[in-house]
Amino acid sequence: MPVHAPTYTPADLGLAIENLRTSAPLIQCLTNAVVTNFTANVLLAAGASPAMVDVPGEAAAFAPVASAVLVNLGTPHAGQRQAMLEAARSAHSAGTPWVLDPVAVGFLEVRTRFAAELLAQRPTVIRGNASEIPALAGSGAGGRGVDATDDVEAALAPAAQLAGSCGAVVAVSGPVDLVTDARRTVRVPGGDALLTRITGGGCALGALVAAMVAANDGEALLGTVAAHALYSAAAERAAATAAGPGSFAVAFLDALAAVTPGDLSAQAVTA
Amino acid sequence: MPVHAPTYTPADLGLAIENLRTSAPLIQCLTNAVVTNFTANVLLAAGASPAMVDVPGEAAAFAPVASAVLVNLGTPHAGQRQAMLEAARSAHSAGTPWVLDPVAVGFLEVRTRFAAELLAQRPTVIRGNASEIPALAGSGAGGRGVDATDDVEAALAPAAQLAGSCGAVVAVSGPVDLVTDARRTVRVPGGDALLTRITGGGCALGALVAAMVAANDGEALLGTVAAHALYSAAAERAAATAAGPGSFAVAFLDALAAVTPGDLSAQAVTA
Amino acid sequence: MPVHAPTYTPADLGLAIENLRTSAPLIQCLTNAVVTNFTANVLLAAGASPAMVDVPGEAAAFAPVASAVLVNLGTPHAGQRQAMLEAARSAHSAGTPWVLDPVAVGFLEVRTRFAAELLAQRPTVIRGNASEIPALAGSGAGGRGVDATDDVEAALAPAAQLAGSCGAVVAVSGPVDLVTDARRTVRVPGGDALLTRITGGGCALGALVAAMVAANDGEALLGTVAAHALYSAAAERAAATAAGPGSFAVAFLDALAAVTPGDLSAQAVTA
Repeated sequence: MPVHAPTYTPADLGLAIENLRTSAPLIQCLTNAVVTNFTANVLLAAGASPAMVDVPGEAAAFAPVASAVLVNLGTPHAGQRQAMLEAARSAHSAGTPWVLDPVAVGFLEVRTRFAAELLAQRPTVIRGNASEIPALAGSGAGGRGVDATDDVEAALAPAAQLAGSCGAVVAVSGPVDLVTDARRTVRVPGGDALLTRITGGGCALGALVAAMVAANDGEALLGTVAAHALYSAAAERAAATAAGPGSFAVAFLDALAAVTPGDLSAQAVTA
Repeated sequence: MPVHAPTYTPADLGLAIENLRTSAPLIQCLTNAVVTNFTANVLLAAGASPAMVDVPGEAAAFAPVASAVLVNLGTPHAGQRQAMLEAARSAHSAGTPWVLDPVAVGFLEVRTRFAAELLAQRPTVIRGNASEIPALAGSGAGGRGVDATDDVEAALAPAAQLAGSCGAVVAVSGPVDLVTDARRTVRVPGGDALLTRITGGGCALGALVAAMVAANDGEALLGTVAAHALYSAAAERAAATAAGPGSFAVAFLDALAAVTPGDLSAQAVTA
Repeated sequence: MPVHAPTYTPADLGLAIENLRTSAPLIQCLTNAVVTNFTANVLLAAGASPAMVDVPGEAAAFAPVASAVLVNLGTPHAGQRQAMLEAARSAHSAGTPWVLDPVAVGFLEVRTRFAAELLAQRPTVIRGNASEIPALAGSGAGGRGVDATDDVEAALAPAAQLAGSCGAVVAVSGPVDLVTDARRTVRVPGGDALLTRITGGGCALGALVAAMVAANDGEALLGTVAAHALYSAAAERAAATAAGPGSFAVAFLDALAAVTPGDLSAQAVTA
């Protein structure tokens, strides 16, 4: 289904980013122990407000007041799994958009069973890499961690199938990101390889997707694409001055706060 | 009760900071998963020694050898709550100063009940924002996370009431910080808004309060004020060179190690 | 047993580092909450691939596919202890090299008992400071946290005894690092005191040891020495431009990615 006109113009994406900065959505994150700090800093730098409420007995109560919820399966200890299920159920029931990041699903048993259970709560967006998305869709062997070992374009068919069966927008991150709602598929080029040399590069993107969807009236496809475009533009801006992965991470946070709609021209996306 | 003379001179505060650097107090932190790393780095940069001992069965044994203890309720999972109660009881019993940071108390049930239980162990200092302190004092709706939604000056009456009922020093962080022991109220101006664009800005301050009280013979009001003054001066110094939130966090750690008594003139505080 | 020729030349160590960068080993880390992020970033900067798989029910399955495993006892909560034991058993059984970092063993009961249990699974390398290694060897009082309170050279005898009884390489970090397999003892000079002003300086080194051993055919003595040499060279390079502990940590990550064999001349080590 080739479509030759851009699905979203740089102006559309710039407006989506402005909406994030002016609305400062409150994002409940239930995420892994490795990236909580970086994820919260990415949200703050981009203009959102993080709340890492992942304790059983509190997670359900928070989801209805949150603007959106992120559930990331990177280090899903028992107590956190219980809170994640509470939050996903509560978000689904309250109509709060929520994002599922199925880290390393496929090979690792506990999270693979748990991810299937979470799908019943109808995530608004599913974001993963080219190993995880096919594994969650029931094809592919899954990833060995947060690093993708498979090709992004090869993940398009499983991604579209997953999007169709779940009613979710599905995003596959890679050198060129894919975002699909089963009917429409958008590609977001750009970014920088240094994003793969710092931890949390993919995980924090899931949180930004949640924030961008919340800030744009729950428009899941637009929000997901705009989050990827902002991320790519900020990575390019940071890479221009970085001396290595340490200074890249610092400059990336600075860039998330500084990117202007004009920086997004290279992230113009076509269907 | 207006008092026109400064409660503490810049020289008093400079001496308190020197005491921290020369005594290198050992601070036991039981804190939230988002900010453990930043909190430890803040303590190290300022000259203290962090020890994140928050495992049940160990926390009680450590509190008597620690110079001070921090209990921060940001992500209070069940095992950590047990360790927090152990540590608070042990600190109270051993005479080790301890600081309570009641993150997001008010709206979230588990931590709100738990904070009330902790108050029985007589914290030396309670540090929070303008939403949390009134909620802990029994007035106000509480915060939705680490961001204050209420006004600092409006929190003065509940803060003083809480200080009186608990026998604690109570600090309310904001654009101008309030520190009160019920009888005396000190205001600490300065700082920078970039502190609200990085995660852990408030949480790590709680740890620094613990360190500063420990380094100054348990003088809770002086230590708490000096910690706020150092924090504000370091934030100003960092903001002068930062290009955004990422580089601010880095420069802030550098500044905590570098602030001199002369930098504190703007933090002269009046009652 | 003095040996006057260098055990490893700078060229040997440079080759070991090249092996790390070209093989990109997958390192399973079960480590403490304070340093997970920094540890993952150290591994990524150096050229390895981190996977923080520490959930019971998953940890055992992952160890055989990992290139090496790190078990760090910094904040050993109950669920993590269970996963650590799973991973150590599985690594031992599968022949995957694994590194034990016995943080604060000696004074704290839970981890001290647990470390003894882990030793039965035959770690390939044990890395600690001059308080922890003697405590694990059954002499000395143990550390009060991650800071060593004892002298490195005084730890040589207990380190060699531990190496002999466990069949492990044992490393003691300090101003001059000691690495011994009971028969041979290697000293690695260099580094910078700023490493003690950031959290995770020692803990992340344990992960790098795991990566370097994995990348060099399981040669534990060479890998452990090369990891310490890379770490020291990167610290020196970072200290040359750092303005304090914050900018040091950033420059250190940059340096880990940039160190060349030529930077290692000062880390030439003698037996």
